Amino acid sequence: MLKVAILGGSGYAGAELARMLLVHPHVELTAITSERLAGTLISDTFLNFRNTDLRFEPMNLKAIEVKADLFFLCLPHKASQEAVAHFHAAGKKVIDLSADYRLKNAGVYEKWYQTPHMYKPLLKKAVYGLPELHRAKIKKASIIANPGCYPTTAILGLSPIIGQDIVDRDSVIIDSKSGTSGAGRTPAQPFMFCEVNESVKAYAISVHRHTPEIEQELSGVAGKKLNVIFTPHLIPMDRGILSTIYIRLKKSISLSKVQKMYRDFYRDEPFVRVLNNGVYPMTKAVKGSNYCDISVFLDKRSGKGVTLIIVSAIDNLIKGASGAAVQNMNIMYGFDETSGLASSPPSP
Amino acid sequence: MLKVAILGGSGYAGAELARMLLVHPHVELTAITSERLAGTLISDTFLNFRNTDLRFEPMNLKAIEVKADLFFLCLPHKASQEAVAHFHAAGKKVIDLSADYRLKNAGVYEKWYQTPHMYKPLLKKAVYGLPELHRAKIKKASIIANPGCYPTTAILGLSPIIGQDIVDRDSVIIDSKSGTSGAGRTPAQPFMFCEVNESVKAYAISVHRHTPEIEQELSGVAGKKLNVIFTPHLIPMDRGILSTIYIRLKKSISLSKVQKMYRDFYRDEPFVRVLNNGVYPMTKAVKGSNYCDISVFLDKRSGKGVTLIIVSAIDNLIKGASGAAVQNMNIMYGFDETSGLASSPPSP
Amino acid sequence: MLKVAILGGSGYAGAELARMLLVHPHVELTAITSERLAGTLISDTFLNFRNTDLRFEPMNLKAIEVKADLFFLCLPHKASQEAVAHFHAAGKKVIDLSADYRLKNAGVYEKWYQTPHMYKPLLKKAVYGLPELHRAKIKKASIIANPGCYPTTAILGLSPIIGQDIVDRDSVIIDSKSGTSGAGRTPAQPFMFCEVNESVKAYAISVHRHTPEIEQELSGVAGKKLNVIFTPHLIPMDRGILSTIYIRLKKSISLSKVQKMYRDFYRDEPFVRVLNNGVYPMTKAVKGSNYCDISVFLDKRSGKGVTLIIVSAIDNLIKGASGAAVQNMNIMYGFDETSGLASSPPSP
Amino acid sequence: MLKVAILGGSGYAGAELARMLLVHPHVELTAITSERLAGTLISDTFLNFRNTDLRFEPMNLKAIEVKADLFFLCLPHKASQEAVAHFHAAGKKVIDLSADYRLKNAGVYEKWYQTPHMYKPLLKKAVYGLPELHRAKIKKASIIANPGCYPTTAILGLSPIIGQDIVDRDSVIIDSKSGTSGAGRTPAQPFMFCEVNESVKAYAISVHRHTPEIEQELSGVAGKKLNVIFTPHLIPMDRGILSTIYIRLKKSISLSKVQKMYRDFYRDEPFVRVLNNGVYPMTKAVKGSNYCDISVFLDKRSGKGVTLIIVSAIDNLIKGASGAAVQNMNIMYGFDETSGLASSPPSP
Repeated sequence: MLKVAILGGSGYAGAELARMLLVHPHVELTAITSERLAGTLISDTFLNFRNTDLRFEPMNLKAIEVKADLFFLCLPHKASQEAVAHFHAAGKKVIDLSADYRLKNAGVYEKWYQTPHMYKPLLKKAVYGLPELHRAKIKKASIIANPGCYPTTAILGLSPIIGQDIVDRDSVIIDSKSGTSGAGRTPAQPFMFCEVNESVKAYAISVHRHTPEIEQELSGVAGKKLNVIFTPHLIPMDRGILSTIYIRLKKSISLSKVQKMYRDFYRDEPFVRVLNNGVYPMTKAVKGSNYCDISVFLDKRSGKGVTLIIVSAIDNLIKGASGAAVQNMNIMYGFDETSGLASSPPSP
Repeated sequence: MLKVAILGGSGYAGAELARMLLVHPHVELTAITSERLAGTLISDTFLNFRNTDLRFEPMNLKAIEVKADLFFLCLPHKASQEAVAHFHAAGKKVIDLSADYRLKNAGVYEKWYQTPHMYKPLLKKAVYGLPELHRAKIKKASIIANPGCYPTTAILGLSPIIGQDIVDRDSVIIDSKSGTSGAGRTPAQPFMFCEVNESVKAYAISVHRHTPEIEQELSGVAGKKLNVIFTPHLIPMDRGILSTIYIRLKKSISLSKVQKMYRDFYRDEPFVRVLNNGVYPMTKAVKGSNYCDISVFLDKRSGKGVTLIIVSAIDNLIKGASGAAVQNMNIMYGFDETSGLASSPPSP
Repeated sequence: MLKVAILGGSGYAGAELARMLLVHPHVELTAITSERLAGTLISDTFLNFRNTDLRFEPMNLKAIEVKADLFFLCLPHKASQEAVAHFHAAGKKVIDLSADYRLKNAGVYEKWYQTPHMYKPLLKKAVYGLPELHRAKIKKASIIANPGCYPTTAILGLSPIIGQDIVDRDSVIIDSKSGTSGAGRTPAQPFMFCEVNESVKAYAISVHRHTPEIEQELSGVAGKKLNVIFTPHLIPMDRGILSTIYIRLKKSISLSKVQKMYRDFYRDEPFVRVLNNGVYPMTKAVKGSNYCDISVFLDKRSGKGVTLIIVSAIDNLIKGASGAAVQNMNIMYGFDETSGLASSPPSP
Repeated sequence: MLKVAILGGSGYAGAELARMLLVHPHVELTAITSERLAGTLISDTFLNFRNTDLRFEPMNLKAIEVKADLFFLCLPHKASQEAVAHFHAAGKKVIDLSADYRLKNAGVYEKWYQTPHMYKPLLKKAVYGLPELHRAKIKKASIIANPGCYPTTAILGLSPIIGQDIVDRDSVIIDSKSGTSGAGRTPAQPFMFCEVNESVKAYAISVHRHTPEIEQELSGVAGKKLNVIFTPHLIPMDRGILSTIYIRLKKSISLSKVQKMYRDFYRDEPFVRVLNNGVYPMTKAVKGSNYCDISVFLDKRSGKGVTLIIVSAIDNLIKGASGAAVQNMNIMYGFDETSGLASSPPSP
């Protein structure tokens, strides 16, 4: 049994991660930290937890390092920088769910996150943990930068096509709709029930921090630097992200050929499903699961020629956070990639 | 007091219209029809109604034509064709909330609605009832084609800019998010609570019937035929539409200049509010009101140059249907344009 | 025009009150306070507000007392004690939406609110502002203690029957279900969207502070001291309270006779509607309105004999707070009692 | 591997059952029927399904009887009568999720369900499938009448106390709040999103068909016939039932003693959790799981003496339907009782 620990377990991502690790067949969860809740049972905070006597403990890096071989970090960005470095120096493996090691270019990180990066050499060692793009590197990695939730939908939605000559790489527009759990558990006025319920709004237009992460990965696939327009929206539901992605085609192509490109690209992927012709992804169909559903459509009416419209859907807390982390762990340690992630989600 | 009647009053739009007309200072609601509910009190179906003994009556055009001078038609498209013609022939005025008289080109109507138009000459007489564009014509009209809900957000969002040389008119993408009341009151599996709740999906990509309506009006403003990409989404709330609209600029311009263009365009409009710099529209702020909130943003990062991002929000049942109908009536009859529409909506 | 001011206007009740007062035909809203938001436009915080340049100002009792003749206090309990006394001493009238002057017995207040009452003589002068019970006293009052939201449903639901010999006054059980706006706008973890959505829970069983308020008023109607069992629940919606009330009957009586008692009791009430036989109240039917809907049912199967089951529904922010305050003002100043409150609410 | 089949698989309960059976370690799901969807993939209707090529087939009892040893019936009441009899005659075992074999007294069934019972002798053979009460009989049963959702909360909430001398058995009031999935997938106006959302209502007061089922089981535990008052409510969420149960005590007892009685009663139960003192059950904590959470409270203020208030929460589709069916199967076939049911549910 692999010994693992979670740092920063009082948020939604940490809790979902703990829930999955507690029933994972090859893993023992030995510790979970929370400064605020130290000493209390995790089942007192998360009433959905069963059959565990695990308690939150304070975050003492030195004390906790001996308890596990793999550390999941669910800390705020910036705080994660040092913790990753600490465990790496101690010879441990790390899966970091924060944004601290996702951006390869420290300058880009510093510009978007408004804070210096103190461990630049480690950036090179960190692998961006999207298995569909980087599985081979993940296998050998000691530091995984677990992808952001919005980027997962955008990168999986565009990867099969962004490197093809038929697309205008500079024309990408990503219009995303997210449930509210992405905003975290910390109380804040805009995420109170009465503010979110019965409303929809856009936010952070052109300035959302997931933008450079999307661009880095898509540029990598395309083999050419590109920028995207990314608009996130907040909608009144707990979980799920649906991204509607627009990209101009330079020449016309049949929808069935595009669908084939997507099916071929994801043929061996256990967690990406290219839906049948005309079927629309909906977040409820992936809620509670590690799946990403994708469907493609062509618009041929526009004066700019043909536009490919891709719709992708994930559960932001699973494929967009904790499930992806478990998937990365499975790959790193040679477990079956679907271990602990295989079941269909409840519905409705 | 102007005598008015509603045909097809058992749906959400008809009910909201009746509610507003019952307290309108210059109007007497003399009749409301429903085949299925004929003979019953409207307050038995719509429990929110107070202080009215009005009953639904069957839809007998001949019998009802003597009861009013202005007729609001909340019938399904196709059924409205004949009813409009009937009342028009009888010398009455009509505000038609269906799509039957919105499209000036009968061929376009027949293609998108898959049914012949039997009253083509009347199409020329009908005025597209968006006061912000056609107020002068509405004043003198005898047939008003009341705009669709999605088109209202798109047309109001783009009208101040679509005719300007700085924009690439062929680049319009409209990504809309709608509450569920737009789907009507008739039972259908996809709109059951457990199907809609906790989920978001796109639908009718590239084939939604509101597309030609948006194109007709924007082409009119632009003075040049144009097509748009329009993607509607269903989100888990009762009321409200938020549209996020993307249009490429041919040359750069400051955000404050764009904001000024919008403010100038809507300076005298009682129901369009251009929000302050950086303020995001949210549907909850317009829920229950006849307002359209608009905010504009610039994205300068994209490889295609600068993109203008416009966000517009309305209550689909008011500014997107019944409120617009009342506003049109106010204009036609010389009432104060805000009569019966002036109050701020409840919140949250 | 009566000059009025609101103290503590940054919460939901204060905002709804301001919204109604701004369009009230006999009233001028001259000031609204908020320490935190002082200097900002109220329309910047409450985006639903239109056509007002009103700004929040700091709460300086001395400075504000000259601005109005009637003061609405939306302050936290305890803070309201002094403010009421201040305006009363200055010869002004006050409608206090807090709990500070609702309980006639200072000892009961001190026990349930865990704080001393510093202005006991004023308790005698304050009138409990439920028009259906105390209209004559409200007319002459200078201090109104505006009722709590839960108590309004319970007291209106039981008043027609609690003084009758046929009921067992000691058997009252009130099981209430409330939307989330009752918890206020201040950020708190239990009222975050993801905590409230898709869940229901009971809270404060046997210890909710509205209990003694219910008991005081029902004891008054019954002419005999009584206690009740009161269980509040939180459900995932913005607005509305539904109370299901159980009371044993000492002898059998026909349902139609009970219905007649209720109809007679509320015959002249503009805002209480006794629903038709078999019609169930639902909060959506009163959302946005000052109405209380009531329906009665008899259970004859129980081994304890016949039980009367009363269901009552209100909008907690209107009939349960701000609307009731406006109704009280209308009575105090001889305005039409429905001024500013008459319209049917939007639906759905 | 046990071969099982589902009859009537197009509803929510059937789908959840199929989902659980597809990953159950000891079971092979060989067939699932739906008249309407015959021939189509179940994953086309239930998008949450993965990794299955199972198709709906028509409901031909003769043809399907050879395909399995255990049949789960998710048919409407009345239709289930004959199907149960058919499989029983064929020597197969049956778990019936309808109400047809729950009531031991055919007269009671006929009165509440307004239809004759054609297979009265089988009623004696059927075992009411609540493991916490009838585990020994379930082990040997060939026909299981799977409990209703509301009754599960009421019976589990009251069983530890209803047979004790300290309670007044005739005083039981059960006030239940249910999500909307209990109403099924068939389109109907009252369960459309816009009707359910942002509202709460009571329904079927004193006439709900789950009443006699609750009474039968509680009478059995108490050893004395008793009636209860049962009031169901519909609230705006997908899944979950919370029941708040009131029962008078004949003499006072400490809360800790009551808690001990509950803990002792459920000591060995894998799926009932008696919460810590003062912790309130919430449906979100059991959503997606087979657990029933229970908490007890005492009210000592009432004029009727002490009242015990019990709050119980389940997921209506799991512990209230499909999960209970799987639990019953596990018991019948000697599998570990938690097989396929053990994991903690996702949250939020």
